[in-house]
Amino acid sequence: MAGLQVRSLLVTGANRGIGLGLVRQLLGMPNPPEWVFAACRDPKGERAQVGLPHPGSPGMCPGAARTLGALHREGTVPTGRCLRGHRALPSLLPMANPKGTSLGEHRGLPPPGTVRGVSHHGDTDLPCPGSAEVTDPASIKAAAARVGEQLGGSGLNLLINNAGIAKLNLLDTETLEDMSQVYTTNTVGPLLLSQAFLPLLKKAAQGSPGSALSCSKAAIINMSSYGGSIASPSGWDLMQVVSYRCSKAALNMLTKCQSLGYREHGVLCAALHPGWVQTDMGSSAGHTPPVTVDASARGMLKVLSSLSEKDTGTFLDWEGNVVPW
Amino acid sequence: MAGLQVRSLLVTGANRGIGLGLVRQLLGMPNPPEWVFAACRDPKGERAQVGLPHPGSPGMCPGAARTLGALHREGTVPTGRCLRGHRALPSLLPMANPKGTSLGEHRGLPPPGTVRGVSHHGDTDLPCPGSAEVTDPASIKAAAARVGEQLGGSGLNLLINNAGIAKLNLLDTETLEDMSQVYTTNTVGPLLLSQAFLPLLKKAAQGSPGSALSCSKAAIINMSSYGGSIASPSGWDLMQVVSYRCSKAALNMLTKCQSLGYREHGVLCAALHPGWVQTDMGSSAGHTPPVTVDASARGMLKVLSSLSEKDTGTFLDWEGNVVPW
Repeated sequence: MAGLQVRSLLVTGANRGIGLGLVRQLLGMPNPPEWVFAACRDPKGERAQVGLPHPGSPGMCPGAARTLGALHREGTVPTGRCLRGHRALPSLLPMANPKGTSLGEHRGLPPPGTVRGVSHHGDTDLPCPGSAEVTDPASIKAAAARVGEQLGGSGLNLLINNAGIAKLNLLDTETLEDMSQVYTTNTVGPLLLSQAFLPLLKKAAQGSPGSALSCSKAAIINMSSYGGSIASPSGWDLMQVVSYRCSKAALNMLTKCQSLGYREHGVLCAALHPGWVQTDMGSSAGHTPPVTVDASARGMLKVLSSLSEKDTGTFLDWEGNVVPW
Repeated sequence: MAGLQVRSLLVTGANRGIGLGLVRQLLGMPNPPEWVFAACRDPKGERAQVGLPHPGSPGMCPGAARTLGALHREGTVPTGRCLRGHRALPSLLPMANPKGTSLGEHRGLPPPGTVRGVSHHGDTDLPCPGSAEVTDPASIKAAAARVGEQLGGSGLNLLINNAGIAKLNLLDTETLEDMSQVYTTNTVGPLLLSQAFLPLLKKAAQGSPGSALSCSKAAIINMSSYGGSIASPSGWDLMQVVSYRCSKAALNMLTKCQSLGYREHGVLCAALHPGWVQTDMGSSAGHTPPVTVDASARGMLKVLSSLSEKDTGTFLDWEGNVVPW
């Protein structure tokens, strides 16, 4: 954990589940990032129009929703400041963690007071620029520009495209609408976000010493799933979710393309599988998932801290194991 | 070639390029199928709104268009009978090849007279049921029902989802619109077509002796591309075409899902890469592609004739080599 030295990062889908777990772990690090932009579509925790982000992960389960609710009560999510997306793009919800706040002693869950204090640095929050839809790339670019202004010319080190949805269809009941919606959110969203934040990622890379790729320098991390592994499409008997699987296979391809296109800019690109995490959904088929949300988040941040030149364009799980395409 | 014993099949995107090559090869076989349903979106050969189906293949090149034009002059394409799709779904254009016609002596390109004779069996053509759009699955099902009526209860042995498009964008210039359109055509189209024709495929499987999977029994073949191989995304330096690559990776995942879901129904499912075929596009980067359209089509039909139980859910090229996911 201590290995991930990042000045700034943005996580989408950060209002619950794995995204929330990542933010909590990040804020609890001995040397937390100076800037954590926690992006979510619905900071009030409503689950409407949102499915599971990963088979067996805590995306949409009641447990995750309760966790979110608890954090709301703790005042960690400033619901009044966001860019609301009607459809797929997460709204941008900045959480600034100024250097030097006394988070060093806190591991795991940051205490409510600390986090509340962080979220109340109103002068570091972004002004809400209005609706930012995935169908409106210009508004995404505008949001990225505002993040850039907040960063004061130093660039964004790390973009974690974590937000995702799924529809619990069978192969025979998949529809054009669900295929399109899931693809737009899970695949096109990360493409557009990456395009919009690329200038900031480039800036971070240019401002980082050395030429070797790393997450501390500049990186795009796309949250995939071993459900999107074509070679070994895990969990078919539990849930077919073809639209989800296709979108994640496509996201893996996007990751590969980004790794080929952005290497010259000093931006590392990789796909991550967060593990099969303990949730109601993960347990619904009668199995007890082996991974907690915190363990998944901790594991992934550890993996991120270890990524180097050789890892760009790869697909790894939360323990650093290679997942077959 | 002689090994592919199929009573009935349907090929989408059959008005040009590889689809056309497949139909020509099929009609020139010693024992041609009794029914070849050649589906295309635009039987007049217009190339509007259609990109390349495979990097380096003859999909959109002027050469392919000329080939199509030549066949039109030969009277092989009854342009007045089709289901027109406004957007992505190929219109259905049946070409019936009644058993016993003297095609046995013709290999390679069927002579104009023979093919014209085939296409003029007006009483075997399908009535045009109106618009069949990929956004209207009900109309696709209606078309499948009409094909079923023509087949007289025997089912459809082979569905070749060949139709596809691409947009020549760079990673940085991909758009939501192009991502969506290419995905709808290249990935969702095959899903919906397979759903609609599944009852006919099941019927063919049930009517076929033995339990082993094969294309002669019942199969879905999805035309992929090694441009969609995540492990080895060929041709990046020639064309980035991210929307195309993502759609083909997703199509590969769909193929895997179909193989898992349809095995119990006796339907083999596989993805094919047609090769890097001699076209203007293939040659545009200064390389001479090694494969002719006819060689690609012949090769793929030979591969199809050899597919068995072990091959369902795999990704093979026109020579039968495994392509990495």
